[in-house]
Amino acid sequence: MAEKSNGPRNGDCSSRVIHGPTNPMVSPLLTDLYQFTMAYAYWKAGKHNERAVFDLYFRKNPFGGEYTIFAGLEECIRLIANFKFTEEEISFIKKSLPSSCEDAFYDYLRGIDCSDVEVYAISEGSVVFPKVPLVRVEGPVAVVQLLETPFVNLINYASLVATNAARHRFVAGKSKILLEFGLRRAQGPDGGISASKYCYIGGFDATSNVAAGRLFGIPLRGTHSHAFVSSFMSPDEIIDKSLRSSDGSRTCEDFLSAVQTLLNKIQWLPSLHGTFGETNQSELAAFTSYALAFPSDFLALVDTYDVIRSGVPNFCAVALALSDLGYQAKGIRLDSGDLAYLSCEARKFFQAIEKEFGVPGFGKLNISASNDLNEETLDALNKQGHEVDAFGIGTYLVTCYAQAALGCVFKLVEINNQPRIKLSEDVSKVSIPCKKRSFRLYGKEGYPLVDIMSGENEPPPKVGERILCRHPFNESKRAYVVPQQVEELLKCYRSGKSGKAEECLPALKDIRDRCIKQLEKMRPDHMRRLNPTPYKVSVSAKLYDFIHFLWLNEAPVGELQ
Amino acid sequence: MAEKSNGPRNGDCSSRVIHGPTNPMVSPLLTDLYQFTMAYAYWKAGKHNERAVFDLYFRKNPFGGEYTIFAGLEECIRLIANFKFTEEEISFIKKSLPSSCEDAFYDYLRGIDCSDVEVYAISEGSVVFPKVPLVRVEGPVAVVQLLETPFVNLINYASLVATNAARHRFVAGKSKILLEFGLRRAQGPDGGISASKYCYIGGFDATSNVAAGRLFGIPLRGTHSHAFVSSFMSPDEIIDKSLRSSDGSRTCEDFLSAVQTLLNKIQWLPSLHGTFGETNQSELAAFTSYALAFPSDFLALVDTYDVIRSGVPNFCAVALALSDLGYQAKGIRLDSGDLAYLSCEARKFFQAIEKEFGVPGFGKLNISASNDLNEETLDALNKQGHEVDAFGIGTYLVTCYAQAALGCVFKLVEINNQPRIKLSEDVSKVSIPCKKRSFRLYGKEGYPLVDIMSGENEPPPKVGERILCRHPFNESKRAYVVPQQVEELLKCYRSGKSGKAEECLPALKDIRDRCIKQLEKMRPDHMRRLNPTPYKVSVSAKLYDFIHFLWLNEAPVGELQ
Repeated sequence: MAEKSNGPRNGDCSSRVIHGPTNPMVSPLLTDLYQFTMAYAYWKAGKHNERAVFDLYFRKNPFGGEYTIFAGLEECIRLIANFKFTEEEISFIKKSLPSSCEDAFYDYLRGIDCSDVEVYAISEGSVVFPKVPLVRVEGPVAVVQLLETPFVNLINYASLVATNAARHRFVAGKSKILLEFGLRRAQGPDGGISASKYCYIGGFDATSNVAAGRLFGIPLRGTHSHAFVSSFMSPDEIIDKSLRSSDGSRTCEDFLSAVQTLLNKIQWLPSLHGTFGETNQSELAAFTSYALAFPSDFLALVDTYDVIRSGVPNFCAVALALSDLGYQAKGIRLDSGDLAYLSCEARKFFQAIEKEFGVPGFGKLNISASNDLNEETLDALNKQGHEVDAFGIGTYLVTCYAQAALGCVFKLVEINNQPRIKLSEDVSKVSIPCKKRSFRLYGKEGYPLVDIMSGENEPPPKVGERILCRHPFNESKRAYVVPQQVEELLKCYRSGKSGKAEECLPALKDIRDRCIKQLEKMRPDHMRRLNPTPYKVSVSAKLYDFIHFLWLNEAPVGELQ
Repeated sequence: MAEKSNGPRNGDCSSRVIHGPTNPMVSPLLTDLYQFTMAYAYWKAGKHNERAVFDLYFRKNPFGGEYTIFAGLEECIRLIANFKFTEEEISFIKKSLPSSCEDAFYDYLRGIDCSDVEVYAISEGSVVFPKVPLVRVEGPVAVVQLLETPFVNLINYASLVATNAARHRFVAGKSKILLEFGLRRAQGPDGGISASKYCYIGGFDATSNVAAGRLFGIPLRGTHSHAFVSSFMSPDEIIDKSLRSSDGSRTCEDFLSAVQTLLNKIQWLPSLHGTFGETNQSELAAFTSYALAFPSDFLALVDTYDVIRSGVPNFCAVALALSDLGYQAKGIRLDSGDLAYLSCEARKFFQAIEKEFGVPGFGKLNISASNDLNEETLDALNKQGHEVDAFGIGTYLVTCYAQAALGCVFKLVEINNQPRIKLSEDVSKVSIPCKKRSFRLYGKEGYPLVDIMSGENEPPPKVGERILCRHPFNESKRAYVVPQQVEELLKCYRSGKSGKAEECLPALKDIRDRCIKQLEKMRPDHMRRLNPTPYKVSVSAKLYDFIHFLWLNEAPVGELQ
């Protein structure tokens, strides 16, 4: 498997080695067949080397929100930094195209790489908005066209799931621990691995996915499952019952008996008496055995049989026995039932134990919860009141159930220095022509106010100058802005043959930090879940005029009958 | 990338070589961390070699339907046939577990493979139902536990998307061509590749995904995009205008002029006059150029500017010019707008051309449609009436928007010959204990009637014998069945050390054929989209009694207060 690229952190990175994509299945063949038929047609027409500019952007923020996190850039850069067809791939393409295609075309394909392709992009982990190019790719039309499908594939899901993660973080609040538990429900192996990576960028703290931990250095979390609990039949199964104390000073020869004695004590505590009767003994055996294996990391799944009548008391008995040996248990995990109610009941139980046994901190033991959580259930739990400290979130997070896809597109905006437009009866699908620059303008309070796109050769907006920002398609929507800060959004990641300095690919942690910081800088009304205010995306007055000139020029004039 | 396994087609396949998983990222580390913490706890308790049986099954059919297609088995078999930790993986696991874990555990991990693991499974491509094990895995508990996450990951999405494809096929009908166009919107690279594979199993005809075509031999389809059309500025760009006739007998020196002359003729045809004015000339240039590259495979995307006023007339002019040279055009693709209306208008246009120019077959040219299609839009198109021959389906198909996940689970049902049950307050989440066999019973008309699970040592149901089938959890639901045919569902795919004969892994085409045949055999009321009848899933009388005995035994008795 490919290693992570480790270029220097800042400055010109053009000399660094960029490894191939994380998933070895990402190859120049990971594209739609029509990219090759078009490449042939371009080549046949002698157009293949025409210089083309494509914009990659999306049209609508996902999840009913007004913001998106941009992710997936590094994998795109890795692909083009290593873009080259193997002979085996060439011969497969040849087999897949009509036999009438000329052989010289395959010689052309053999020679293709992306050394003449320029890539400008917004920094990965940024907060981004519809219509503003996330990536601008410039190069020979036939080559850049081949990149459409893999680029869109690598960015669509990455950005969608990072945004989903950021939304979950927003609802859960900063103080909660968020764990991504989606591997088993993700859409295939690298659906799982990508989910772990991009949820981390979006603000999650850790993952259960070991492969993702190894590939990306994401913190790992996990304890045991129901199967572990049900694999035990009775406490008699535990053979080696001894446990050394935390400081190594003494050994408890029968840890199981210690646990059983404590369980009996708990049962007869006045404050808990009647809460539970006989607990499940195979569960008690499983917990005891798990504690013997991980005395410093004892976290138990307590809902295999019954949370309050079995799991929590069994856990407390084991945790108290550990405490007697100087170990501090971690807590419990709930994976079913009414999480608000059960977490509050468990908290009360812990607090009663703390009081009765005088074990400091016992009342504050960690309560983790999982089981089909999503943005809505987190919100509902907050409203109800709960005692959960950590959420393990899987299915709805990683499959992005609330939104099928981000719907990124890759549109030709210029060829041979001629701006191009793609029309549609649906105005939201009309593309914004021209090779463009884009800027984020910040207001007095430090919030971003508006993104503005302008033609490549227009003078950039300046701090303190009054700038007219126009809606790209709606004549009546425009506003003057005097920015307090101007940030150019597109940065050079591949300079092609231009010799420009290239941005480094930042470390995953830095991408995550950027994401978290940018989200904090957003004006709160853009972020709220109910009826958020749309962030403004605009074009310069000059670009506005040009769009509409080109539009009229290309659209056929109808004849009413 | 791994090659496909090519064992003999029938009989004992135990001697064949099984290659690793298609995606090299599928490794023994592609699992949840808790599988390793549990493995350590099992090992520490001396339980790691206890013989355990796990069932992999789902609880509810997806998409509001009453059937599911089972897929993903081959990738699971490939994983375990090659299951072995590398030293690098071992050292990563060591880093990820608490430092207190004993070194000897890593020696144990080093020695692990799946040579002692038995896998029984339903044949891939079969129609399957909730609660009935799709896969039964038996082996040392610590090893089998490690397989939980990757098995569920590899089967969940595969089965979900195959089912989604089958449902799309059902609505579209047998006569339509179904093309999977989802790569760019899929959840990452192998979301795309898996979607192509499993949609093919579910009844799709082809994919646009070249990598999937190469890996699995799936037929490829594709033509050109809007960008190709907008990359042309005017017909003057076409340099080499000559085209040889299909039989090679003559050459048209100026194919562009021939096209332009025909376009002019079409415009003044009495039956079409007034339908369109001047068409977009850059589009005409693009179509002409595409036809020069692919004279025998001319299929044009006609909605870049305006379908009826520009795309269709331009297409017809090029198609007629090709026809004059003995080439038969393929047709058009619509990618926006009202597909029902536009396809009917295009059909009328084609028929008018056939009549006016006397070109046989022109009226029947292929009309393909794409643009955010799903089951519902296909259904709506059918109801409205349309003239589409082929559907290109992407986003909603491959992301399975209508259903987040299949929700497969992997539950311990027996350990050391002791049946185990997992309880839950939600009855649908209670697991069915025991190592089981399962059978499909067929009725007089050849339809499958009921699936029945029974204990491993019970006598199997026999043709012509009266069998009591009981709902596993609902006392009052039971029925007698006299099967006309009995099919044992679980077959041996990995024999472990038992020496049993193993099933071969069938070729993809055979899996697809099985799927299509099994769907045809289903009783129509199970298949209908609105209020389908649930297919019956049952247990034997003996197993029923045992489940309820175990349930009472394990559940704690509450105390009402």
